Amino acid sequence: MALTKKTVTGMKDIMPDEMVIRDYVISVITETYSRFGFTRIETPCVENIENLTNKQGGDNEKLIFKILKRGEKLNLSEAKEEADLVDGGLRYDLTVPLVRYFSNHANELPNPFKALQMGNVWRADRPQRGRYRQFMQCDIDILGESTNLAEIELILATTATIGKLGFKNFEIRLNDRRMLKSMAAYAGFKEEDYDNVFITLDKMDKIGLDGVTAELSENGYSKECIDKYLSLFKELESYKNDGRGAVEYLSSTLKDFLSEEVKNNLTEIMDAVNAAKEADFELVFDPTLVRGMSYYTGTIFEIAMPEFGGSCGGGGRYDLMVGKFTGNDVPACGFSIGFERIILLLMESGFKVPGEEKKTVFLIEKGMSSERLTEALKEASALRSNGQKVLVVKMNKNKKFQKEQLTKEGYTEFIEFYRNPLN
Amino acid sequence: MALTKKTVTGMKDIMPDEMVIRDYVISVITETYSRFGFTRIETPCVENIENLTNKQGGDNEKLIFKILKRGEKLNLSEAKEEADLVDGGLRYDLTVPLVRYFSNHANELPNPFKALQMGNVWRADRPQRGRYRQFMQCDIDILGESTNLAEIELILATTATIGKLGFKNFEIRLNDRRMLKSMAAYAGFKEEDYDNVFITLDKMDKIGLDGVTAELSENGYSKECIDKYLSLFKELESYKNDGRGAVEYLSSTLKDFLSEEVKNNLTEIMDAVNAAKEADFELVFDPTLVRGMSYYTGTIFEIAMPEFGGSCGGGGRYDLMVGKFTGNDVPACGFSIGFERIILLLMESGFKVPGEEKKTVFLIEKGMSSERLTEALKEASALRSNGQKVLVVKMNKNKKFQKEQLTKEGYTEFIEFYRNPLN
Repeated sequence: MALTKKTVTGMKDIMPDEMVIRDYVISVITETYSRFGFTRIETPCVENIENLTNKQGGDNEKLIFKILKRGEKLNLSEAKEEADLVDGGLRYDLTVPLVRYFSNHANELPNPFKALQMGNVWRADRPQRGRYRQFMQCDIDILGESTNLAEIELILATTATIGKLGFKNFEIRLNDRRMLKSMAAYAGFKEEDYDNVFITLDKMDKIGLDGVTAELSENGYSKECIDKYLSLFKELESYKNDGRGAVEYLSSTLKDFLSEEVKNNLTEIMDAVNAAKEADFELVFDPTLVRGMSYYTGTIFEIAMPEFGGSCGGGGRYDLMVGKFTGNDVPACGFSIGFERIILLLMESGFKVPGEEKKTVFLIEKGMSSERLTEALKEASALRSNGQKVLVVKMNKNKKFQKEQLTKEGYTEFIEFYRNPLN
Repeated sequence: MALTKKTVTGMKDIMPDEMVIRDYVISVITETYSRFGFTRIETPCVENIENLTNKQGGDNEKLIFKILKRGEKLNLSEAKEEADLVDGGLRYDLTVPLVRYFSNHANELPNPFKALQMGNVWRADRPQRGRYRQFMQCDIDILGESTNLAEIELILATTATIGKLGFKNFEIRLNDRRMLKSMAAYAGFKEEDYDNVFITLDKMDKIGLDGVTAELSENGYSKECIDKYLSLFKELESYKNDGRGAVEYLSSTLKDFLSEEVKNNLTEIMDAVNAAKEADFELVFDPTLVRGMSYYTGTIFEIAMPEFGGSCGGGGRYDLMVGKFTGNDVPACGFSIGFERIILLLMESGFKVPGEEKKTVFLIEKGMSSERLTEALKEASALRSNGQKVLVVKMNKNKKFQKEQLTKEGYTEFIEFYRNPLN
């Protein structure tokens, strides 16, 4: 039977050019986080179906690739519901598997546990340009550290990595879910409305103060609440480049709604990161930063790349999630790097992996004697042992065209071997 | 709902210790093959179900993890057969995806195309100790090179890799399917019996000449054929350490059944590999080497590690496979490294990844001022920028126990930071 040449819908083949960059990014991530004491782990790509459908995954649970039970003949006639056929699915993120892994192996793991995961995840999203149904995620988590040493280390390690990849002038935006909530409380919103209010607030950088005012008003919130809420953000505009000042202003204004701890948390993170950072970036307090996921319990942060118009990752503290799975709360904080987005940015910018300068081709005339071929291979071997890249290929009739093609593949030197050594 | 802590049946979590070794092996493989002009590629883990079930995969086709169709509600009542529910499956090897990839992208790829693939594959085998349902394969293939330059380069690159991983005194066993066939023809076996005869021959290293004789006889082959067949192997015993001699003996004895090309093929490979090899190993002509897969058309080879009692990979030439999928034959030769076996051997031998000597811990007293913490982090940052591994953790009450644990994790230096600098 003939082959279907195309990939399955929505997934992609990775070409050699891109693969070189992906391998390089993976090596930089592994190496940098390792310097900060993180260790890589891996979980199976297939997860128990119950773990994927226990309501912790939000909308992703609608996008699971489900796997048929194996080991017995599929019995269609007796199957009444999907659960009779399915016992596993492809993981849709790396968080559910991390929590399962941690609860399975906590006794064997260091405390705190600093985990680095890089792996594919699958989501049966509607196929669209630039979004694939299989993609790589890169998650870094610290489990068991309750102080903001976790946040500080995550931000230092992540920015060191991003910097090592050549990105400059990026920002880390910082906020705290407790700050968000106390601002909403101060304004007089009801607690059950917070998440809805934050959805509007999250659009601040796109629609501005006026847009946010209009949307909150459309959604039926009282003018009094909205005015009081927005007055905070207007006041904060005078602290644009003064995160410490902004946090202190909010701390004193919201003092009936906000614990001292939140102020200390944010100022400590800003002080420590600014003092110890390796990379060239700004740490910015951003009171409009929301981060969609409702499981965050404290600090939240995001990598912003203004010149590329968007976020390249983010994370925060989620002290109550592990307990929802296991019954025992464990302090937890994580950072997820937008791996595929970073690869896309590097590809588009024509990024060249460092140390790829000299690549040699040995062009071997066809029909050469075994002895002569051996001579050429010995020379190639000597160069390769020195760490040099040497491609040995047969010489084509159209040598000029062949060299042009090889030049496009990045080869810079050509050595020709003929049946008879040239005089 | 509570989490299922265990992995799905037959798949495993990878712990930090093993992951360090896996990452190292992957980096050595990538780096070494890259020096030989191989480029990494990747295909989706999910393949079209038709590609996985077109009879090229042998028994593996019985072990496919099948994936339910997505995007529409699963309609159990209308589904008459599995095909109504399934359109993809997890790949069971990397060869089918490689051939699909090559036929999809041949115009964009170099010719010859030297591909390196490392990726997970899945087989719903009965779970058993040391064999998992998800495991990593590492395949290296050259498509489009008809001469034995392909075999020579594959053997040189693979042995350089194995050598770089610290293995010594291993063997590459070499044979040619055409040699196997001509030996069987010379003995008088019928062509339709060859594969069956080879299954017995394959056991030579376990059951010896007598065992092979007995089994062939049990299987009903004539004494005349068996005696003539075995006389070849007896004669070959005097060429134990003389591959060239053995090939020349066979070539003259089998001259009515064997083309000169096969002799030249094997002797050229032996000469070139022995002259140009980087690693410390023996290239051995082994007329009993069979390699199970019937798709091989010429040279076959295997990595043998006598001290570990088994094979760590193998491969050969399969010039007719691509055509079976695509309708156009393309010369092809590949080597598959037994990745999981190599990891197991390294783990069991207590292998330590090079360059992991100095690992420092900063122990931070709890309740430290923000300023003091920042000082510690600045010091850590200075060491980390120098490439050193530094773990920053809070000091436990039982500092002695904590240091013992960290020592077990490979940390060698401990620096303590107290709330007040020591005088």
